[in-house]
Amino acid sequence: MVISSLCLALPLDKDRKALIRKEEMLQIGGKLLLTKQEELANEKLMALKNAEIAQAMKTSQFPPSMHFFRAKKLIEESKVFHVLKKMPKGAALHLHDFGILSVDWLVRNVTYRPHCYLCFTPRGNLQFKFADPAPPTPKPEDCSEWILLKKYRGQLQNVTEFDNSLLKNLTLVVDNPELAYSDQAIIWARFENIFITVAGLVHYAPVFREYFARGLQEFYEDNVQYLELRATLFPVYELNGKTHDKEWSLKTYQEVAQKFAKDHPDFIGARIIYSYHRRKNVTYIAESVQAAMKLRVKFPETMAGFDLVGQEDKGHSLWELKEALILPTTQGFDLPYFFHAGETDWQGTSIDENVLDALILNTTRIGHGFALSRHPVAKNISLNRDIPIEVCPISNQVLQLVSDLRNHPAASLMSSGHPMVISSDDPSIFGAKGLSYDFYEVFMGIAGVKADLRILKQLTLNSIKYSSLSADKKQTTKEIWQKKWDKFVHDLAEGKKL
Amino acid sequence: MVISSLCLALPLDKDRKALIRKEEMLQIGGKLLLTKQEELANEKLMALKNAEIAQAMKTSQFPPSMHFFRAKKLIEESKVFHVLKKMPKGAALHLHDFGILSVDWLVRNVTYRPHCYLCFTPRGNLQFKFADPAPPTPKPEDCSEWILLKKYRGQLQNVTEFDNSLLKNLTLVVDNPELAYSDQAIIWARFENIFITVAGLVHYAPVFREYFARGLQEFYEDNVQYLELRATLFPVYELNGKTHDKEWSLKTYQEVAQKFAKDHPDFIGARIIYSYHRRKNVTYIAESVQAAMKLRVKFPETMAGFDLVGQEDKGHSLWELKEALILPTTQGFDLPYFFHAGETDWQGTSIDENVLDALILNTTRIGHGFALSRHPVAKNISLNRDIPIEVCPISNQVLQLVSDLRNHPAASLMSSGHPMVISSDDPSIFGAKGLSYDFYEVFMGIAGVKADLRILKQLTLNSIKYSSLSADKKQTTKEIWQKKWDKFVHDLAEGKKL
Ligand SMILES: [Zn+2]
Ligand SMILES: [Zn+2]
Repeated sequence: MVISSLCLALPLDKDRKALIRKEEMLQIGGKLLLTKQEELANEKLMALKNAEIAQAMKTSQFPPSMHFFRAKKLIEESKVFHVLKKMPKGAALHLHDFGILSVDWLVRNVTYRPHCYLCFTPRGNLQFKFADPAPPTPKPEDCSEWILLKKYRGQLQNVTEFDNSLLKNLTLVVDNPELAYSDQAIIWARFENIFITVAGLVHYAPVFREYFARGLQEFYEDNVQYLELRATLFPVYELNGKTHDKEWSLKTYQEVAQKFAKDHPDFIGARIIYSYHRRKNVTYIAESVQAAMKLRVKFPETMAGFDLVGQEDKGHSLWELKEALILPTTQGFDLPYFFHAGETDWQGTSIDENVLDALILNTTRIGHGFALSRHPVAKNISLNRDIPIEVCPISNQVLQLVSDLRNHPAASLMSSGHPMVISSDDPSIFGAKGLSYDFYEVFMGIAGVKADLRILKQLTLNSIKYSSLSADKKQTTKEIWQKKWDKFVHDLAEGKKL
Repeated sequence: MVISSLCLALPLDKDRKALIRKEEMLQIGGKLLLTKQEELANEKLMALKNAEIAQAMKTSQFPPSMHFFRAKKLIEESKVFHVLKKMPKGAALHLHDFGILSVDWLVRNVTYRPHCYLCFTPRGNLQFKFADPAPPTPKPEDCSEWILLKKYRGQLQNVTEFDNSLLKNLTLVVDNPELAYSDQAIIWARFENIFITVAGLVHYAPVFREYFARGLQEFYEDNVQYLELRATLFPVYELNGKTHDKEWSLKTYQEVAQKFAKDHPDFIGARIIYSYHRRKNVTYIAESVQAAMKLRVKFPETMAGFDLVGQEDKGHSLWELKEALILPTTQGFDLPYFFHAGETDWQGTSIDENVLDALILNTTRIGHGFALSRHPVAKNISLNRDIPIEVCPISNQVLQLVSDLRNHPAASLMSSGHPMVISSDDPSIFGAKGLSYDFYEVFMGIAGVKADLRILKQLTLNSIKYSSLSADKKQTTKEIWQKKWDKFVHDLAEGKKL
């Protein structure tokens, strides 16, 4: 009815309004009906948003268009950001084991513990290890001699300066990212090195436990109710060099999460997605798939499924590894997949087909799916089978897939209501924290000027809906979330100091 | 049939291939069947493309990801680019009057003509004017005194240096664009100033004629068969200060184009889209629409329709101006519109609705339509009514809508076969020439690694199909193009030195 009137003599205001309304309804959350209280809260929120966007247009300083390392300070001054911090965000579904906790504690606490050793690789990267008796063995290839940190600090003139340099080694944050990271290969190399550096600290058994507990705490404080963690389950070690297996790690994750949930009744807990490096030989990948199946039997409550990690652009597409990845199906075993796929700008490569292959291999969600909008068939399958993408805006920007986040391909997917959730990938490594920074980028940048409380509500509801939790647990999570949401909306509507 | 097998125990290679094939068919040109000769040519072309992309992946120097000012030299070294230069490209449908001819001739020839005066604005911009008797009147506001260029050059130590500085004033090209143009407002101001500077030279009647003829020549040499020019039809002046009206300008365009077509039987000519500045008062815009209708009656062969120009982000949406824009419809007059719409990153503003409003106002094509992919309803109308967008990649990059062209929103539209043509907007001002540079960006960057001769063929066919030419003329153009295409394909297939 609306389209036909386009051919009439006069375009009518009401027809135009109907088309615009239709478009608004297609946007994520566009069909939600807000309560009176929510409408009121929305007005407050949009007043803040509109003022900040008007200001950004005037100053040409718009955080979502800027590199996050430069935008961060501006974001922290934003009133909208402070609202988003208070907002209950449901679940964080795309996170990696050692990127969830701000690195301060690692430097100021962990590296001060007894028996902490440090060595330098020829390329200037750091490796840590706790050991007693010393020195830790084996010595990493090409590394300098092990240096006992306590002794080393004792000799330093300026320990603060040294500690700050350690902090810098644990994140990608720099003043001038374009200069420091001239291309994707360079930043990915540095990114993976940071994981190696962090690993030496966090794989030490006492730290491992505490890191995870503090990570949960950080997300809890950012008003997240539940998380799913991609974990490599690498051997955790004791002071005497003894190492633990995957089961031990998974069991520890489970214990810590359950304890945390018990201590915080408004937090649901965490589940683990066992993640293996895609660059490994297909035989090893097959072994890791087998291991995943065993773990899933043994830890049904905590073990959510399997994923492959590492830079996709380096090759090793899902289809090349299918021999390993179809093992569960051939064995009639249900191993949910949560594949990273389409984290690339290289449309048309074998890697770029990962978005399609992830779907063919029956993935439960698509990690990133940055390339999905360029794959109409995969996009339709994802839509029809309700397989969401996990959008991590800051990660995509820092890892150089896109600069101005308004051009993030999720923008067009959002505008047509494609299934998706928002997550933060490795917030601590990007200098972010929890989910709020990524929600800010989505709300202010990717979703457009008009996007309001509806999209925020739907995205948080999505995070529960698309989680790997059982129907029961989803219901519990939603109840917890709803209570918090109502309070959040009430406080916002009443203009309570957020 | 294909989707269902996804649920079978084993994903099958042939099902996957069918899905990939389906996706390839959806891409622009995906359904074209190539002749044997074309298949052969395609193999040659793809060998060049694949080698260049492999090289780019190795060096991390990929022109479509780089700013055009830096990429230009690399593009000119590309073998693919040299093929694209030889390719008959059909029509260039989105161009502006004084951005079509490399600026060299303006400086090295035009400014050396007698009676050429120069003045400087307080902001350091240049204005030119020819006049006899001197000095030219009126003097532009705030400008320095008029300086006779001949006299001025006589006093200079280094005329070459001065001429080079003039060249720089006629394009946006700089070594470090990110530094020189810190935001969109700044580059748009500079962009519009260049038009003012160029205007003083090209609105001089003898130059006007010759500029257009040489512009046609430059596109002809770039293997373009026809063009449509957005022209402001500002008063052209004579040496004695007498000015001509719009009719005179349009008549001159017509004469020059017809003469050029007569002298070059393999060139079809040009049509004019009268373009008025969107920032003007709606009363003036109404007058310009009336003027457009009159011109269309008087010059049916040359006058194609009407458009509004100027930075959209500054406001003045189509809907705000609808009172003027619905005049033809209310008068039962057929005035085709070719609206610029959606040349913005600001999703959700009133300006962002221009893509929808252009369609409601019955536009024939959408200029840029950069925002279209974020408007599912407008996108569907554009698709169903077969209204193409005019994609100008280099313009969008230089004017800071997108940095890495692989993230250009046309990528997803291309992959689903959305109607579109490729054009170059103001190549001379961006340091480009003809259409080849923009075709390079599309073929290598936006369309993805797998895109082949099919997409090129379809895009050139599109340019004829979506032109404003009559059915007859389209047929003639296509015949001319086909002959050239066959020769191009033959030479490429036979490995003839291109
Ligand atoms: Zn990830
Ligand atoms: Zn234009």
